[in-house]
Amino acid sequence: MIDTIGFDADDTLWHNETLFNMSHEKFAALLADYHSAEWIHKKMLDMEVRNLKYYGYGIKGFTLSMIETAIELTEGRIQGSGIRKILDFARKMLTAPVELLDHAADTIKTLSKSYSLMIVTKGDLFDQESKIARSGLSEYFKIIEIRTDKTAKTYKSILKKYGIVPGRFLMVGNSLKSDIFPVLDIGGYAVYIHYPITWEHEKVSEVELNYKKNPKYRELEHIGLLPQLVKELEDSAGQRVSGSVGQ
Amino acid sequence: MIDTIGFDADDTLWHNETLFNMSHEKFAALLADYHSAEWIHKKMLDMEVRNLKYYGYGIKGFTLSMIETAIELTEGRIQGSGIRKILDFARKMLTAPVELLDHAADTIKTLSKSYSLMIVTKGDLFDQESKIARSGLSEYFKIIEIRTDKTAKTYKSILKKYGIVPGRFLMVGNSLKSDIFPVLDIGGYAVYIHYPITWEHEKVSEVELNYKKNPKYRELEHIGLLPQLVKELEDSAGQRVSGSVGQ
Repeated sequence: MIDTIGFDADDTLWHNETLFNMSHEKFAALLADYHSAEWIHKKMLDMEVRNLKYYGYGIKGFTLSMIETAIELTEGRIQGSGIRKILDFARKMLTAPVELLDHAADTIKTLSKSYSLMIVTKGDLFDQESKIARSGLSEYFKIIEIRTDKTAKTYKSILKKYGIVPGRFLMVGNSLKSDIFPVLDIGGYAVYIHYPITWEHEKVSEVELNYKKNPKYRELEHIGLLPQLVKELEDSAGQRVSGSVGQ
Repeated sequence: MIDTIGFDADDTLWHNETLFNMSHEKFAALLADYHSAEWIHKKMLDMEVRNLKYYGYGIKGFTLSMIETAIELTEGRIQGSGIRKILDFARKMLTAPVELLDHAADTIKTLSKSYSLMIVTKGDLFDQESKIARSGLSEYFKIIEIRTDKTAKTYKSILKKYGIVPGRFLMVGNSLKSDIFPVLDIGGYAVYIHYPITWEHEKVSEVELNYKKNPKYRELEHIGLLPQLVKELEDSAGQRVSGSVGQ
């Protein structure tokens, strides 16, 4: 049986990668006189990954990486006015309205009546808190955990902290690497909901897709189907229990 | 009696404001052809406070504010190579060794034997976690709370979460605004340890200094005196208890 349902936030409850994509496009347009969009995109991605160890995840680090990439790709020729535009992209991202995914609000409201709900998200503390507040959904979540990364160790420490048994925990998210595999690793249920855009850094290889054979793994088309799936998981767990009692 | 002792981190356990000051000086030198150091400092402080609502606290936001100030103060004439230098200031700050304050390590080790210790710090999640790990002190703290702000509401929610009674909680820190006043407000003990540099934004007016008359307020010259002070507070609380029993 399931007690607690954890949700990733960005691209699971609300749109996020679309904002980064928008900035990527504006960034490529800004440097169009110097390089092709593909090359700019590639160099920017390299820079982001290289800077993760200094900045961690989030819009502020992304912006500093855009600025550094712009300087590198123009060999220092970019002017203050160009950098000013990059700061404006960041401002736009940081103040963009929180746009919920279809069915997200209804699903959260429904499930909050029967389950203890948790947000487990990574990224910038300030920005994530601000988005959670603006989403209008924060009252439905008993626990909100904002972490620098989401590994098996992270999930273990969170579940331990709140006394949640891994076998009674279900995690929902759009990143196989951050939401699904680590939770399966510690014995929880994991529901993967694909989002049209995945950041390169979150992509996983085919080899790792063995995880998908785990009996506690599920996939859904959209978050609106989650209450029904949880019910089915509960029913089948109930049948297994009564089956073993009958033996 | 006291169960739990909370510590601020930056400028209470390790030096931090010195790093920001170093960057302020280098920043003024970078723009020396355009303006006086005083003017640059003033404009930068204005920018930081103005941007708090977008960036929150921390080095990444500080860096973005430096870049924006540089563009503004040079009317866009600063070149990529100048901005590159600002990014280097940030890199230096983010990777600077964590320099503990005198007596901090011994005090933490001593107190951890008899009390449950907690870090309550505000700022950037990634940067704070990294500093806590590099400080070598993390094993002595049972609880680490990194928050976007430290108000009475913040402290209340933290104490509630861990079932700590405010009257048995003592907070130690160098910011009257963030470490001392809010804790006194909720009925806890608060020990103020002055640090030579205080960020303008954390300074408080004389009016607010009424707080210092609170019987649960104490001041110390340095953190090395804390174990003795805690002992005295415990002893005097013990006397009050036995005194009332004798009546």
